[in-house]
Amino acid sequence: MDLTCPLPLQDYPYVLLAHGGGGRLMQQLIDRLFRAAFTSVANHDAAVLSLGGDRLAFTTDSYVVNPLFFPGGDIGELAVNGTVNDLAMAGARPLYLSVGFILEEGLPMATLWRVVQSMARAAERAQVAIVTGDTKVVDRGKGDGMFINTAGIGRVETREPIAPDRVQVGDVAIINGDLGRHGLAVMLARDALEFESPIESDTAPLAELVLALLENDIQPHMLRDLTRGGLVASLHETATAARVTIEIDEPVIPVREDVAGACEILGFDPLYVANEGRFVVFVAENQVDRTLEILRRFEVGAGAVEIGRVTAAGSAGVVARTALGIRRPIDLLSGEQLPRIC
Amino acid sequence: MDLTCPLPLQDYPYVLLAHGGGGRLMQQLIDRLFRAAFTSVANHDAAVLSLGGDRLAFTTDSYVVNPLFFPGGDIGELAVNGTVNDLAMAGARPLYLSVGFILEEGLPMATLWRVVQSMARAAERAQVAIVTGDTKVVDRGKGDGMFINTAGIGRVETREPIAPDRVQVGDVAIINGDLGRHGLAVMLARDALEFESPIESDTAPLAELVLALLENDIQPHMLRDLTRGGLVASLHETATAARVTIEIDEPVIPVREDVAGACEILGFDPLYVANEGRFVVFVAENQVDRTLEILRRFEVGAGAVEIGRVTAAGSAGVVARTALGIRRPIDLLSGEQLPRIC
Repeated sequence: MDLTCPLPLQDYPYVLLAHGGGGRLMQQLIDRLFRAAFTSVANHDAAVLSLGGDRLAFTTDSYVVNPLFFPGGDIGELAVNGTVNDLAMAGARPLYLSVGFILEEGLPMATLWRVVQSMARAAERAQVAIVTGDTKVVDRGKGDGMFINTAGIGRVETREPIAPDRVQVGDVAIINGDLGRHGLAVMLARDALEFESPIESDTAPLAELVLALLENDIQPHMLRDLTRGGLVASLHETATAARVTIEIDEPVIPVREDVAGACEILGFDPLYVANEGRFVVFVAENQVDRTLEILRRFEVGAGAVEIGRVTAAGSAGVVARTALGIRRPIDLLSGEQLPRIC
Repeated sequence: MDLTCPLPLQDYPYVLLAHGGGGRLMQQLIDRLFRAAFTSVANHDAAVLSLGGDRLAFTTDSYVVNPLFFPGGDIGELAVNGTVNDLAMAGARPLYLSVGFILEEGLPMATLWRVVQSMARAAERAQVAIVTGDTKVVDRGKGDGMFINTAGIGRVETREPIAPDRVQVGDVAIINGDLGRHGLAVMLARDALEFESPIESDTAPLAELVLALLENDIQPHMLRDLTRGGLVASLHETATAARVTIEIDEPVIPVREDVAGACEILGFDPLYVANEGRFVVFVAENQVDRTLEILRRFEVGAGAVEIGRVTAAGSAGVVARTALGIRRPIDLLSGEQLPRIC
């Protein structure tokens, strides 16, 4: 192994908040530092492992959201749904979760109990079992109330691989509903900002929807939840891996009026804001109608809509067609507009 | 689910460092709070899951050791070996690890690279693949440099269950070497105390030893690494689950002279100090010689020794026979003598 740090230390001698933000800097950290050392690491939300005749998906996420409770959810619900969704994005049925708590000395025990109950309810809803765990406590001032890690195991239910490089020219991108609520809900709770209508997080388990697609012979080429970095980060990841151009139709992308208003006031772009119950699925054109019909059977898929398509191969990029019909490239941010939203 | 917190909030309204310490308070937190909500959680280091004809072990641990580097190891090596060892204690061959980093803004990138390289080396040594990961960054002052979570999957290699309640009267307890080095190494590094001879952590992967026992038809009734809470916590866990008395022969327990000296000065009891490369195995009396012979084939088992036996059923307890032949009960501490040693 090379002993020199593969990241240019003169550019980034210290870890920045942006390194955890789902943008360019996090991508650089993963590609250049982690992959240099961990050569077997998966290039998707979950690793797919062959074990005992089954193919298993295995994934992990830590949750550091601030504040711990926000309209529509809390860190515990997020920690269950987030890992459930990472497994679903690999075409897997989520089965088992582990949970690791890092608690700060002085955390009210009642807060821990509230979060633990929320995790139990979320696990029941997503039909996964929390089977193993760990607790560490750090000194006061060395944590932030509570951090949670969940890892998950699921059974892969699709024969065809689901991966960014499977996306082809002509494929259609579909999302399951309106964007931007989770990030804003957390942001508004953090700063105790009050808007006329409360904006609630969209946190929800998505496995049911994905499994329904698979059971109905839909073959997704790629699935990706729209978490850190929002829709744009997810599309860029796919465009880069598949070396394609993805063109989205900006006016059809659903954003609730209150969310759009709050974004305007706060200076955020809802296409970059994190969601916790939204995903993009790429399918062949002849599967679009059926995909939309299946997704819309579910409450969390009621707003499913086609948002764009893969228009060209050979160069990676994301392009938005605006209401005026103008095409403008949409860049990846270097970090995250809203730190610590998950 | 009961909405009232099952822990008596008037006694412990806030999380204490001791709740992460491997003693009575952590046991209470697990038994009364986590198990009340997470009914499927395993009562051992790892959960054993039936999946696709295989039995898999699944486990997780977070690492918050302070400082990140100490004589003999670092947080990265610990995070790999610790989870590898939890799998081994379930009689499993460790196969795959996930890794979740929680980084504090401002952490030197070179520090992260050093830890990541150490993890890669430890994974290679233990023959596990790091296959999936996640990175979060928290604001300066809301973390402590770096926390790491690892979760692990292994294939269970024994037909007979390995569990504390399998231990029987007459069973012999064997450990694989001297005690107390890890906890002291971290403690001395933290306080920059200098002793004549440097005390190095014993951190090491233990799966090889366990697999060698299983391949040679040794049937361990119980395996437990001697981490948080040391030998005493591990013995108490077994004694409580099996409702047996375990009697250990204090003079035969190996403790290096420099470790014993440092413990005396600092007021620690080496039987309670955490190790990261030590475990206890309970076997039937007729398998003792063979177990010792197999363990001693390995560098990390060269000091294997019989330390005691299960003397009575019906009431749970740990008793030490001192050098003078006196029997005294050895209690579980409420917390941990040394916080944040893993």
